[in-house]
Amino acid sequence: MRRPAKRLVSAPLARSTLPLQEQLYRRIRAVIATRQLTPGEKLPSVRTLASELGVARGTVDATYARLAGEGYLLSRGPAGTIVSPELQVDALPARAVRDTLKLAPEEDSGAELRPFQLGLPALDAFPRALWARLTARAAKRLSGGALGYPAYAGLPDLREAIASYLAVSRGVLCHATQVVVTGGYQDALSLMARLLLRPGDGVWFEEPGYFLARHALETASAQVLPIPVDDQGLDVEFAQEKAPRARLAVVTPAHQSVLGVALSLARRQKLLAWASETNAWIVEDDYDGEFHYVGRKLPALKSLDLADRVIYAGSFSKTLFPGLCLGYLVLPHSLIQQVIEAKRATAHGEPVLGQRVVADFLSDGHFGRHLKRMRGLYAARRDALASALRNAFGDRLEMTLRPGGMHLLARFPDAKDDVDLVRRALRHRLLPSALSAQYLGRTNDSGLMLSFTNIPEEQALSRAKALARALGMGAG
Amino acid sequence: MRRPAKRLVSAPLARSTLPLQEQLYRRIRAVIATRQLTPGEKLPSVRTLASELGVARGTVDATYARLAGEGYLLSRGPAGTIVSPELQVDALPARAVRDTLKLAPEEDSGAELRPFQLGLPALDAFPRALWARLTARAAKRLSGGALGYPAYAGLPDLREAIASYLAVSRGVLCHATQVVVTGGYQDALSLMARLLLRPGDGVWFEEPGYFLARHALETASAQVLPIPVDDQGLDVEFAQEKAPRARLAVVTPAHQSVLGVALSLARRQKLLAWASETNAWIVEDDYDGEFHYVGRKLPALKSLDLADRVIYAGSFSKTLFPGLCLGYLVLPHSLIQQVIEAKRATAHGEPVLGQRVVADFLSDGHFGRHLKRMRGLYAARRDALASALRNAFGDRLEMTLRPGGMHLLARFPDAKDDVDLVRRALRHRLLPSALSAQYLGRTNDSGLMLSFTNIPEEQALSRAKALARALGMGAG
Repeated sequence: MRRPAKRLVSAPLARSTLPLQEQLYRRIRAVIATRQLTPGEKLPSVRTLASELGVARGTVDATYARLAGEGYLLSRGPAGTIVSPELQVDALPARAVRDTLKLAPEEDSGAELRPFQLGLPALDAFPRALWARLTARAAKRLSGGALGYPAYAGLPDLREAIASYLAVSRGVLCHATQVVVTGGYQDALSLMARLLLRPGDGVWFEEPGYFLARHALETASAQVLPIPVDDQGLDVEFAQEKAPRARLAVVTPAHQSVLGVALSLARRQKLLAWASETNAWIVEDDYDGEFHYVGRKLPALKSLDLADRVIYAGSFSKTLFPGLCLGYLVLPHSLIQQVIEAKRATAHGEPVLGQRVVADFLSDGHFGRHLKRMRGLYAARRDALASALRNAFGDRLEMTLRPGGMHLLARFPDAKDDVDLVRRALRHRLLPSALSAQYLGRTNDSGLMLSFTNIPEEQALSRAKALARALGMGAG
Repeated sequence: MRRPAKRLVSAPLARSTLPLQEQLYRRIRAVIATRQLTPGEKLPSVRTLASELGVARGTVDATYARLAGEGYLLSRGPAGTIVSPELQVDALPARAVRDTLKLAPEEDSGAELRPFQLGLPALDAFPRALWARLTARAAKRLSGGALGYPAYAGLPDLREAIASYLAVSRGVLCHATQVVVTGGYQDALSLMARLLLRPGDGVWFEEPGYFLARHALETASAQVLPIPVDDQGLDVEFAQEKAPRARLAVVTPAHQSVLGVALSLARRQKLLAWASETNAWIVEDDYDGEFHYVGRKLPALKSLDLADRVIYAGSFSKTLFPGLCLGYLVLPHSLIQQVIEAKRATAHGEPVLGQRVVADFLSDGHFGRHLKRMRGLYAARRDALASALRNAFGDRLEMTLRPGGMHLLARFPDAKDDVDLVRRALRHRLLPSALSAQYLGRTNDSGLMLSFTNIPEEQALSRAKALARALGMGAG
């Protein structure tokens, strides 16, 4: 039997944009630095390794030569290559071990923020110092049973704080027992899809709609049915005619997640009546319901839910920050036990510290103040970016401002290939999103979704001009 | 249409051990305190509400009377009951709103720690001050992109720190790209089951075994096949004969999760050969591999995995604390992309702060020291509890000490109904677990699993005596 260390050397290389030679070089260094191949031990022959890895012999040859040059390996000609007997493995600094295990740079994702990037709150305006203070306090108090497994449904204090907040701010009147804390919307939707849907069950889905939500539904083997969105929101009449037997509808009633329109009251009532009559469920994704700038914000669809068919989903990713990974569901009474049971089968619950800090943030009144401040900030950033885009693009751009949401939707009548526009923008490290890519079916609709949340007013014009230049639509 | 607030009043009452009248009382107070029913508004009639709730009229009557007595409601005789027009809703303290939304006490789970309770590390010995310091530091540094969505596979620094730790401490040689951070073992196993199994696929499962793992597999519609565990661990020969076509084996090779035996080297090799030959997968749950007290700890099964069929699962719930909700997988190369894709469909990733603190804890060297200290502490607590049990029970008890693990297994030849023993212990707020309940099939095996991790040496004798008294086996 071959030793595991040799096996690691010859295990398939992972998909990566690192050159094969660099990958192999790092891997062998790691194997040596972690003492799995020790001084004097033999490596696989160049021919064997090349054939096992499916790479050219030259690649292995060059890697061995490089490592020999650095003193790791010793070539003994026809007798093969060994780990240098002189190598002082103990003298390799711990840092070197860590370096050799380092991820390729492009896998180190999640860190860089790009202009116009969707789905993020204003990260520069988050009250970091306050949050750090609350976190430090909560961490200090964590002891005894609180270190143990969290309740599956969430921290009781947090569930109560959420229920209070929803009653006052979203018109959702619920008992804390209906609130279940989740790891965010994706986690929540995926949980509900697994629980409520059997393979092939139909789901009304906004067309265009949020692709990660679609992905969660498809992963649960649902049949995702694209339902057009018009100026009144989801076209419920169309859906009822085409797919009356669907089991679930997933909607963003406050500001539709792509087009930004609100679901009209008439449509809300029709949707609720349909669910009630057919015993279907509705998932209301209210991720940006707080971010309304013109007139009063609309109460949640859930506030009209007389028949208890709406599963209300909230997320702290947009109202606080995404790295927190916390959200919540307000459940119909008939689903509470099932959902908690399903959480038990698939998770240990959510981390207790984050839940504690959010509970304190809510019940100490910080949350309300933070949301108010963000509404003001976003209103200003939205106006600034809208003006800047009009200024930079002139009549090459068409844009209808919606009263809420977290992005602008710009259409360019002279440039219909929005995927190509995105490609061009990416070359300049700008990250708009293509409207056409949000459609499940074919579409002639095209344009760019541009988030304004992370663009300070004073940068709006330069960002807009940079975009215009990147797209080849610059004024000058 | 009736107003939502009224609908809430008459929505079905949740299952709860609170008396119906108390539930209704709290609900109506909440509806008023959250201004969904305003002063002067009418409540449903006693008859209507009683019939909608399916409760006796007397219950509603008494609740209305109580609320009238407290000034919330005003009875106008035949004209019905209204919210008291004099009520100063604004003057209701915020605290009252929160109180009315409070959970029933028995739902406030996860807090109390009971003697002998399984599955918890020593919560009294966790380095809280150090942890709080690292957390405060990490929270202070959290800014910009780090507040955004975490990488699906986990924080790169954490993945690298885990890979370094595993190489040195568990003999598992892997690249950081193979490490995927999870929300703990339950989350990890559930994810792998959804990814690898089709409904009805067979899974070798230790008999007896860890019931929550079984629950995760059953939830993924797997066919859980109980495979006996003997003194060599999982009986691989038996499994190969009975169910050679199983798709997955889930094992705890270090110390079998119920009986505490180690999987022998011969069995390890047979298991790996089976997986390699049939293209089956193995999940290695190494939750307590670090907790070995006699002789050297065994390297992980994964360290022998030449064919890359073992999915190694580690958890910080036992080595740090459960409320952290973090664990990790080491994946075969062929599964990396699929797993990251599956995480993307079902979650946003794990909270960034906890990942940061664990990464710092590992790379600053605290983790190694902590594990060493815990090994010493557990060895002492294990010996102390074993002696104390022998002392308290005399020859009514049979116990074989295993070289590792987190609990003792005590059998009582004169008392074969272990579920009844647990029931008796519970009455004294002690929480042993019944051995027979860990079996999927019928069994004559019976006994108690008794965790020693949270029983300080100086309390061992009093706890043992309390248990003996509770079970009616006290010496005097």
